[in-house]
Order: sequence, then structure tokens, then C-alpha cells
Amino acid sequence: MKSLKYIFEPKSVAVIGASAFTGTVGNAIFSNILQSNFNGPVYPVNPKYDSIMSVKAYADVVSIPYSVDLAVICVPKNAVEGVMIDCAEKGIKGIVLITAGFKEIGEAGKAIEDKITVIAEKYDIALLGPNCLGIVNTHKDICLNANFAIKMPHSGCVAVISQSGAIGVAALDYAHQHNLGISKFVSIGNKAVVDESDVLEYLIDDDATKIITMYAEDIGNPGRFFEMANKANAKQKPIIIIKTGRSVRGAIATQSHTGALSSSDTAYDSLFAQCGVIRVETLAQLFEYAKGFTCMVQPRGNRIVVLTNGGGMGIIATDAAERCGLEMTNFAPETLKELKAKLPASANIHNPVDIIGDADAKRLNDALTIIVKDKNVDAVIVSITPTVETDMNAIAADLCGFARANPGLPILGNLMSLEPDPAFERLLEKANIPNFDFPEADIRVLTAMIKYYEWINQPQIATAKFEVNKNQVREILDALKKEKRTRLTEPETYQILGAYGTKAVDFRTAKNLEKTIIAAGEIGYPVVLKIISPDILHKLDVGGVKINLKNEDELKNAFAEMSESIKSKMPDAKIHGFLIQKFFTAKGIEIIAGADSIKGFGSLIMFGLGGTFVELFKDVAFRLAPLTRQDALNMMKETKGYQILKGFRGQASYDIDAIVDYLLRLSQLVTDFPEIKELDLNPIRVLEDSQGLVIMDAKAIIAEPVVSFGKHSAKVEKSETVTKLQPEIDGRILPK
Amino acid sequence: MKSLKYIFEPKSVAVIGASAFTGTVGNAIFSNILQSNFNGPVYPVNPKYDSIMSVKAYADVVSIPYSVDLAVICVPKNAVEGVMIDCAEKGIKGIVLITAGFKEIGEAGKAIEDKITVIAEKYDIALLGPNCLGIVNTHKDICLNANFAIKMPHSGCVAVISQSGAIGVAALDYAHQHNLGISKFVSIGNKAVVDESDVLEYLIDDDATKIITMYAEDIGNPGRFFEMANKANAKQKPIIIIKTGRSVRGAIATQSHTGALSSSDTAYDSLFAQCGVIRVETLAQLFEYAKGFTCMVQPRGNRIVVLTNGGGMGIIATDAAERCGLEMTNFAPETLKELKAKLPASANIHNPVDIIGDADAKRLNDALTIIVKDKNVDAVIVSITPTVETDMNAIAADLCGFARANPGLPILGNLMSLEPDPAFERLLEKANIPNFDFPEADIRVLTAMIKYYEWINQPQIATAKFEVNKNQVREILDALKKEKRTRLTEPETYQILGAYGTKAVDFRTAKNLEKTIIAAGEIGYPVVLKIISPDILHKLDVGGVKINLKNEDELKNAFAEMSESIKSKMPDAKIHGFLIQKFFTAKGIEIIAGADSIKGFGSLIMFGLGGTFVELFKDVAFRLAPLTRQDALNMMKETKGYQILKGFRGQASYDIDAIVDYLLRLSQLVTDFPEIKELDLNPIRVLEDSQGLVIMDAKAIIAEPVVSFGKHSAKVEKSETVTKLQPEIDGRILPK
Repeated sequence: MKSLKYIFEPKSVAVIGASAFTGTVGNAIFSNILQSNFNGPVYPVNPKYDSIMSVKAYADVVSIPYSVDLAVICVPKNAVEGVMIDCAEKGIKGIVLITAGFKEIGEAGKAIEDKITVIAEKYDIALLGPNCLGIVNTHKDICLNANFAIKMPHSGCVAVISQSGAIGVAALDYAHQHNLGISKFVSIGNKAVVDESDVLEYLIDDDATKIITMYAEDIGNPGRFFEMANKANAKQKPIIIIKTGRSVRGAIATQSHTGALSSSDTAYDSLFAQCGVIRVETLAQLFEYAKGFTCMVQPRGNRIVVLTNGGGMGIIATDAAERCGLEMTNFAPETLKELKAKLPASANIHNPVDIIGDADAKRLNDALTIIVKDKNVDAVIVSITPTVETDMNAIAADLCGFARANPGLPILGNLMSLEPDPAFERLLEKANIPNFDFPEADIRVLTAMIKYYEWINQPQIATAKFEVNKNQVREILDALKKEKRTRLTEPETYQILGAYGTKAVDFRTAKNLEKTIIAAGEIGYPVVLKIISPDILHKLDVGGVKINLKNEDELKNAFAEMSESIKSKMPDAKIHGFLIQKFFTAKGIEIIAGADSIKGFGSLIMFGLGGTFVELFKDVAFRLAPLTRQDALNMMKETKGYQILKGFRGQASYDIDAIVDYLLRLSQLVTDFPEIKELDLNPIRVLEDSQGLVIMDAKAIIAEPVVSFGKHSAKVEKSETVTKLQPEIDGRILPK
Repeated sequence: MKSLKYIFEPKSVAVIGASAFTGTVGNAIFSNILQSNFNGPVYPVNPKYDSIMSVKAYADVVSIPYSVDLAVICVPKNAVEGVMIDCAEKGIKGIVLITAGFKEIGEAGKAIEDKITVIAEKYDIALLGPNCLGIVNTHKDICLNANFAIKMPHSGCVAVISQSGAIGVAALDYAHQHNLGISKFVSIGNKAVVDESDVLEYLIDDDATKIITMYAEDIGNPGRFFEMANKANAKQKPIIIIKTGRSVRGAIATQSHTGALSSSDTAYDSLFAQCGVIRVETLAQLFEYAKGFTCMVQPRGNRIVVLTNGGGMGIIATDAAERCGLEMTNFAPETLKELKAKLPASANIHNPVDIIGDADAKRLNDALTIIVKDKNVDAVIVSITPTVETDMNAIAADLCGFARANPGLPILGNLMSLEPDPAFERLLEKANIPNFDFPEADIRVLTAMIKYYEWINQPQIATAKFEVNKNQVREILDALKKEKRTRLTEPETYQILGAYGTKAVDFRTAKNLEKTIIAAGEIGYPVVLKIISPDILHKLDVGGVKINLKNEDELKNAFAEMSESIKSKMPDAKIHGFLIQKFFTAKGIEIIAGADSIKGFGSLIMFGLGGTFVELFKDVAFRLAPLTRQDALNMMKETKGYQILKGFRGQASYDIDAIVDYLLRLSQLVTDFPEIKELDLNPIRVLEDSQGLVIMDAKAIIAEPVVSFGKHSAKVEKSETVTKLQPEIDGRILPK
């Protein structure tokens, strides 16, 4: 595909379907381009006119006697294909296809869209749309407003990518009302050729864009998005996204805890968390954050100061800071001394500093001069309500001065106005000082900024890679495929985990009572007896599990009862034999971990503590495979259960390293074998400090592999000894 | 105190300290009153002028030859007292005291404020302030803007009470920008005489006010506030409050779980929850809700419809609805049929309905006409982004028509504009149709409305009252006071609980080994042995608890070890004896419940499940005593632990009725005996269905009583048999 330069930076534009009738799309686009003062010629194309809005019109694009970089097409749906071929013939390399009525209306529309896509690909055309609103480039050398709904926004450093036209309009409207300058606006529509990742790639290299905001209903290619997000991180361009469709759960039939708790939206959450993309819930927040990041100053830490002329604002800010985990800084003694000397007696010199209602711009300046010198201050919020004494223009000018003089210190404002659209807001905007209605917005934004810079400044860690027995897993899975079986038995699951160095509780398999008794003798009583059958999903329900069998008699009875129960409850189940496990009572805590593959994303790894943690509080975390060591630790820390693992209130602490190791091996397994659809290890008993963990029960399902997303560079870690497989009694797994 | 009528509805006003110099408070107030077109004479008072702004001025208020209802005072602090006496002499019954520098600056200021308060009370003057911004009454018969910071707001049905002047200004500024009409504005300042409850009382009877918003840093008299809030509920006037100071924790030394988890802010949360006051976290939300409630239509239920011309908005709304627990309604078959017939093929006729981007006002009208007839629809959100086809004024006019024609159906909008301050917003405002920037705001607001109407429509339940043995508790507490002891021993705590009908695990007390053995024999092994001492708070730490003692030998050993350990670790502790309890192993679940008295509020009752529920997840709920049965049930339902009690995922369910009964008895106990400062019952074992509960451990502390808040009318419930006290071995409790 050709570069998006032809779309965003054309030297000349043709509007195919331009119209002289106001109220039509063709008229709106053509007149928007004319009015935006585009820095190059724009040619209206419409066989019905000789000129449109006094500009010479052409019957078709081929008839234009000059070169054309970009065509904006808004002809009726059925004419699009012909027009596209004209464009190809004319050698046009960028097309914005406004026309709607394609994929979004069903199969018939999709068929035409497919044809158009083929043309674009054949002629190497960067095609935006169809079913889109158009684009805007506010750069002073371009000035292109090629869309039919919105006026030219203010120029600024925020790019807006919108999958929905309606949201795009709302977004730009909101940005305009809140003095947020825009660099580029793109409505990506049906994404037949150009998708969000292509636009990201362009914007990352676009010097005018510092912040990228996005409205998305889906991400076409999560893997490529991940790659682009990491490129954006390298350039310190934050990506702020509102991804909708949380409530539309993927209708994937699942047979495990992991499957039930994961969804494509969880996969999106994980994707964004793993590449530092900032996900917000509301459009208002999207722009709040975008505005905040415009100051582009990296906070030194989380110790903030609130400076106000009204105590109430200080209290509101303090409450919000506590909610967000920011620290209201304690001033150095000199700061307090100087503030005391400069401010009136009734002022509050402690943070939040209250210079009281009769403060003028000079007093604010005095206080700020003292505060910005304090080494305990990482960011300053200035909250001023209008009184007879306040001259907001003077205050704004002062803030701009402070921001310039202290380039390492974020200064955020909430200067309030009694009149709409005041001059000081434009002043602050020019100096990139974010200004909000209320101090809680300043706090939210600062928190997001601190988190973002923490993320991009963390050391880059490659994916761990262990020495494993890949061939053994391949053999087991191949055998399964030959049988056209999708469900692994419990011992098979233990075997593939074992091949990747993860230990299950000591077990044997046996086909009859006699061998069962021998196996139990080898393991040592008490034991657990389980049925092995690929047809029995819920063993407990059919009497297929007997625990704490203390001696041979109890084992015999259990064997008889189990055989009887299964014969009556599931007479047709194919029985592979019996599983004999040590009845494991070592002190520890139960976790649940597993993997679930999500279309387009690859495997989603889940972690959580068992019992009410997972069942009632849904206290679980997800990350996409392949995991880095940092990912594994981050996902654990996201859960409340992590407090328990660390040793809660003087209680025992558990082997966290073993869990990290386990999660990484699990990640490597499902990355190497994408056909593993679901893997549910539940429970896993984690023992106390450095004693490891033991898997107590396991389920696995294979299916056609889905595309994996990650592209981490892998490095081989020094492997721990790969756990030896359990000895087998009846030969290689269980014969049929 | 005189009625606030003199403040809000004066027939004449004197501005004492009026000034001719712009930029002074005295000038701002006087000119604001003149410009607001106040419906009566306003007299400037200042000995330096003969006239101010062409209005005859007077040297002092006594010299005004006409009657004066309200004086607005803005003279220097030291002149206030004299001016107040002048006002009293003149017979003025309402004063707004703007001047600052009183209680808020410390002891010296407080002394003058106290003097002023005495004058106001002596002469029966309604005094607002000092240290306030003033008041506004937008009523067309009054038109009074007596404040120094803000212009006259639009007239409307929302009252604003602000404890902070700065927030007041910010609030009115925000209201103005968002087209929110104001009925009254009051800055209450230091609340020397008139406080928020007085203003509430006035506003509840004010026909112009339909919604009351409030910014508060504290509530002076929670009991009276509670009473007023209930009056407001009776008149269906919602109170929406932002109460700041969450992070300022009461520095109360606590010695119990209940104490550590409760705080004055928890008390506020409980207060608001128990009288249906809507607490919000941000000022933006305060006005969002206020705007929402202006439509004053009670939703019939939580089944909503979203109608949009852009799919993205529909998805955003659906996500938000799921987050808030609203239901996207399923249309009746006829509705679908009619929509299908009327709308174009590419429209989405299912909820969220998408009439697509080329929709004009007529298509929207067609769709709405069909939708409002459907009985499955409880509320409608109309979300329209501007396109070439949309005429927002026509759409707004249609919505107003629908709102009028369907008085039982809330209709909320988010019509978006490309231009600031468009006409359609004023149109919607006049028809009381709330209009927001984004659909998620509509959803939030609808959710708040549904909850509010659920609250005010619930049956009123009186506080339960059981037959109890009040005298016995009185005797125990009196004995304690005589000893100047504040800490009850464990058996004493069981006794006061027993007197109120709550059962502890079977126990005896004994002073020596011999009697301990007899007691254990009576109870039956296994037993628990505990030390009894008012000086030992943490028994476990000093070896003062031995559990699961299976026979006399184990008991003897335990007795010896315990005596030795305490002698060495706490040689000076006063020992009352030993507690012998049944080692209670009946199947059940542990809860924690208790009470903590908070200054100004009385007792705060806490409930939660034990273990990680309380310790890690802080899964607890609070309510202020006295509790109604509904309160007790509501507080349990607020916790996640309630799911466990009900029987989680097919597991056992527990005796919820017994917990309700227990909470009510606890509430009655701490209400009857406000000197009980802290009562910590932890753990309490709740048995399975209808088998009751048993207290396993208990602590109690008494102190000087604090004021209780509730004024529920009490009715005597048929009491269950009051549990008989445990037999005593060594006489009435334990002799010293």
C-alpha cells in the first residue's frame, strides 16, 4: 500500500461527486476544502457542471489536465467502482471514499466493497473508507479540510482517529468547545484498506502530532497495533483510546473458568495494558487526558501541590489526590518559612496552599515563586476562582511564565471564568498549560501522565524462553488429532505441562483394580482416585473422584463404587482408565491459572487466587501471551490476592517466583502450540516461600489455532531442570 | 430564629458598607442588586457618600426613614458589631453578613463571631454568614442578586447551597455555561446562626425550588439534617450533595476493627444512605444530576431505549447501561414490525435503534412515535450527531412535543452541536429535557433518578424495638463507672449483649484452677480457656487464649502455662479470673459486627464477613443507629459477602434473619446506652438456615456519650425469648 502521505499531504485534490447544491455531501466537502484555504488546487468533478462555486469543473477525473494526488469520492454507491478505475488510470495514489452502503449494510454491500479493495490493492492506492466522514490536516502548509460534517478545527498537537463518523463529529465538536488543538482528524469508516494501525504508523512519524486519540469498536490487527503502539512509546507519543463494545461479549462456548472469565474485551484490556495504551471509558475523559498530555512535561514523581484562593477547591483536590494515589507533598522547612513571610496571616501555608479570596495576581506569583523552588514538588495545580481581586489574564500570563521558566515541572490550571470563551484560556492553550473546570480533572490527568511515563521509562524486557521438550507435546497433540479428539485427559494435560517443566501432584495411571492397587502402593496412602475419560468433563458429577483413601480397603471400595456409578450414569463414555494421585495436604494456598485463545489475539493467560477470590470478587488478571517476566508480575500485582501471596498481616508468604516461572512456561507452551484452545489449571497449590507449586487438577482443549499477536524478541533463559515425567504403568499414556 | 423569608424575600434591602469604588465588595454587591432589577427599594448605607450610583445614601441604617427587611453588611470586621446593634434597633430581621475574618482565622476572630451570634439570637435575627458570598433569588417577583462575585443566573428550579464561596462561584459559573436554571443560591459561610439545615427547611417549602444541590465540608447538626432530608423526600425534592473531606480522617484513637474501619466520612455516607440523599464525588457530576432531575419524571422502571443516528453512540450507551445496571429493552413484536416498515433497510430496528446518518427530523419523529407506544420502554435517550441532514432545532421541537405528550416517560437527549450556545439547547431547557454532551451522561443520570425514586417510594418502616433487660445493662455500666473503668471484660460484654437478647457461646467464669475444672466439666470438653482482665486488650499476644482443650489434663497444663505467661508478660495486669468457653465447632460462617460512636452522629453500626472479606477487600457496610429492619437488610446487601450468606453457587445458606435480628438488637443497645463507645463482636459464627448465630469473642469500651442523631418513631416488636444469662460460678460477674 502507498504511503498515507497522498491522503494527508496531497499537492492537489479532486472531489469526485462535487455538487453546487447546498445540503449535499458533495457540496459540503468541496466547499469545506475551498474554505479551509487548502494550499494547492482543488478540482470539482461532476459531468453536470461547467463550474462549481466559481471553480472550473471536470466531467471525470481523467479529464483533469493536471496531476492529482488525492481523490475524495462521494458519488453514488453504484458509480464507485467505475470512478475508482478512472482514478487508477489517472495515477492517483490516495483516495478518501466517503460513499456509504457497503459492508455495513450486509452481504450485497460487502461484495462491492471487496471489488473496490481489489482495485485499490492492484493499483497500489491508499484507500480510506468507504463509509467515512473524511479527513482533516490543520498543518499550516497543507490546511486540508476534506470532510462533509465539520468545520476546520483549531490547529494543535492532538490527532483524532475515529471508527465512527458520528463520534468523530461529536469529538471534534467537543474539542472545539474545550480549546483543544487538532493536528489530524481521520474517519476510518469500514477500513477496507487503510486501518487504524496504518494511520498510527503515519502519525507516529508526523511531527505535528504529539498525542493520538482514538475511538475504536474493534482493532483489525491486534499484532500490528501492538507493534505500532510500541513505536509510539519509543517516540513518547501517548495513545489514548476509547474502545467500545465492552458489553458485547464474544459468544464463544467455553468449558472452563478461564474461558468463562475471559472475553474479547478482556483481550483488548490486556493488549492495551501490555503496550502502554491508555484506555478510557468516556469521550469526556478522552479529551480531558488529551488536553492534559498537551503540556508534555514528564512529572518527576507523584508529589503534588495544590495552590488555590478558595479552601473548598483545596479540599476537593486533596480528596481526589487520595483517591488516585497521588501524594500531597510536605514542603521543605524553608518553603514554609518563605510562604509565611510572604503570605497574609490568614492564608494556609501548608499544602493545599490557600492564598485566600482577596488574593491578586501578585500574591499568587509570590507563592508560586517560592513553591516551584521546593525539591519536594513534582507537579503544581493552580486552582483560582474569580473574585473582585482576580485578574485571570494576568494570572494566566504568570502561569505561562512559570511554565517556561520551569520546563521540568508540570503546571496545570483550573482558572475559572464568569464569562464564556475568555482570553486567558487561549493564552494557557498556547503555552500548553492544561486548564480544566474543576481540580479533580487536574488530578485525574496528572495520575494518567505519571502512569504513562512510568510505563515508557521501564526497562524493556524480552520474553523468557525455557529449554523444554517440545517434541513430546507435539507427539501427544498429533496423536489426539489423529483420533479427532479435542479434549485432553487429565494425565495427558499433566504430560504436556511436564514437558514444559511444570510439576503436577505425584500420579500414576492404571487400567484395572489390580494395577490401581500397585500404583497406590508406590505413591503411598492416602491417595485420590479419579476416572480418566475424554468424554467426562465434570468428573465430580458422575462420582468420578474419590479423595483421601487411606488404605487398600478404602481404595477397593472407591474403585467399585466409581465403576458402578459411571456405568450407570455415563454408560457410553470411553474410559481410558484410572488416575491415582497422592492426596496432597502440604500447607499452601490455591491459585487458578490458565489460558484461553481469543480470535485475533492468540492466547490470553489468566491468574487469580482460588475460592471466593475468583468466584465472588472476580479478582483475576489477564495478559496476552507471550508474557514477559514483567507482564507476569504485573498481572499478579493487579489482583488483591497478591497481598495474600506476599504474606498478609504477618501470615505466611508463598512462592511468588514459582508462580512467575509457571506463568512464563504456560505462556511459552500456548505460544508454541496455538492449537491449545483452553487450558484450565485449577486448583494449583502454591507452597510457602521457595517451595514451589503443584498442579492438582487440569483440563485442556485443542482446536484450530487462531492467530497469535506478539512479536517480542525471545531470549533463552537458563532453564531449571525440566521435571521428569511420572513413570507410567500401562505404557505411553493410556492405550485405547 | 426568624424565618429565612427576610433573607430570601425581603421587600426592601439596605447595603451597609456600599461603595462607589468599582473593584470593592461594597460596590459589587450594591451594583449587583441594582442591576438584578430587585423588586423593591435598595438603600446604600455609607457615611462617606450622599448618593451611590445615583441612589440616595444614608450615614447609618437607623437613619433610613423607611422600613428595611434585609441588611447586607460588608463593613470592616471591627465595625460589624456596632452595625449589628444598629440593625437590631432598626428592627431588621434578616442579615447577610459578607465580612470575613471571624472564626476562620482563629480564636480572636471566633470571639467576635460569638458576640455577633449573641446579638442575632437576642434580637431574633436570621443571620447568614459571616464570611459568605451572599445570596441570589431569581424569582420574578423578587429578582435579588445580593452577592459580590456573580452575575444574576438564569431562573430555574435548582437551588444551590455552598459552604465555600469559591465553590459557589465555580458552581454558578458551570451552571451558567450548561444552561442550568437556578432558583436560589446561598453561600452559608461560617454558619454562625443559619446553617444548611435551616436553608433546607426553607427550600423544601419554596415552590420555585424542585432540586436542591449542596456543597458541604461538614453538616452542623446531622440529626436535624436527617429530619429535613426526610421532609424533602416527602415533597419529592431530591437533595444532591458533594461532601468533601473524605481524606481528612477523624483522628479518633480506636481499639477495634469497627473503629479502624469507621470514620466521620463513613458516618456521612451512612447518613446520606439512610435518608436518600444523593452523594456525588465531583462538581461536574453534581450539575449533571441536577440537570437530569429537572425533567422530574419518575422512570417507570430501568428498561431504556437508545435512539441514535450513529452506531457508535448506540454502542457507547449500551456499554454505559451495562455498567450502571440498566436494561436495554427488548421491543414488543409490533414495535419491531412498525419500525421495520417505517425505517430504511440499512437502519437497525433493534435497541439501540440506529436511524443512520442520513436521517432527518421526520425520520426521527417516525421512530419516536413508534417507540413511545411500546409498554416495554421506561425511558428514552435520543442521541443525535449533526450531519448535513439534521436540523437540531426541528429535532429539539419534536422532543419537546413528545415530552409533553408522554408525561410519564423520561426523555433525555444528547443532541450535539457544531456551534457554541445554540438555540435548540434553550428550547430543550425550557421543556425540561436534559441534554448532555455524551450518552454516558444520560445513562448515569437515569440511573440516579431510578435509584432516587425507588428510595422515596419504599414503604416507611419504623425502628424495631425489642423487650430487653435494660436495668441489667444499667447496673453493669454503673458498676464500671464507679470503678472508673472504661473497658468491659469479655464476660461483662456477653452479659450486656445477653440482656438485649443476643447469644454468646456457652461460657463460665472462674477464679482458680479448681473452679475452672468444675466449669469445664459442666460445659463439656473440648473447651477454650481465656484470661479475663480489663488491662489486657490483645489476649493472644500474652498467651491469654488456649483453644481445643480436650480433657482435664490439657486444661491443667493450659491453666499453668497461661498463668505463668501472664505473670511474666503483664505482671501488673488486674486479673478478674478465667473464662471457660465451649470450643464451638458447629458448621457456620464467621461475620464481624460492631458499633462505634462518632461525634455528632451517635453510633455507627458495622457489618461484614470475617477473614479476607473484611481484612483485604474491606467488604463492610455501615449504618447509623437506630436501624430500621430495612437499614439492616440494606447494609448486608451492600456487601459482596451477602452472596455467600444467601448460599453462593449451590453452597450452604446461612441464617440471615438471625443477623438482621442481631443488628437491630445491637442498634437498640447502643441507642439506649450512648456511653458505649465501641463494641466489637468478632467473630460471630452464623449457622446454617434458621439455626441462629453465636458470638465467639467480644470487646467493649465505654466513654462519655456523644449526641445520637436518629428520631425514628419506635414501635415495639414482638420480642423473641430473651436469652437467659449464663449461670455464674463466682457470683455477680466477677468480684474484684
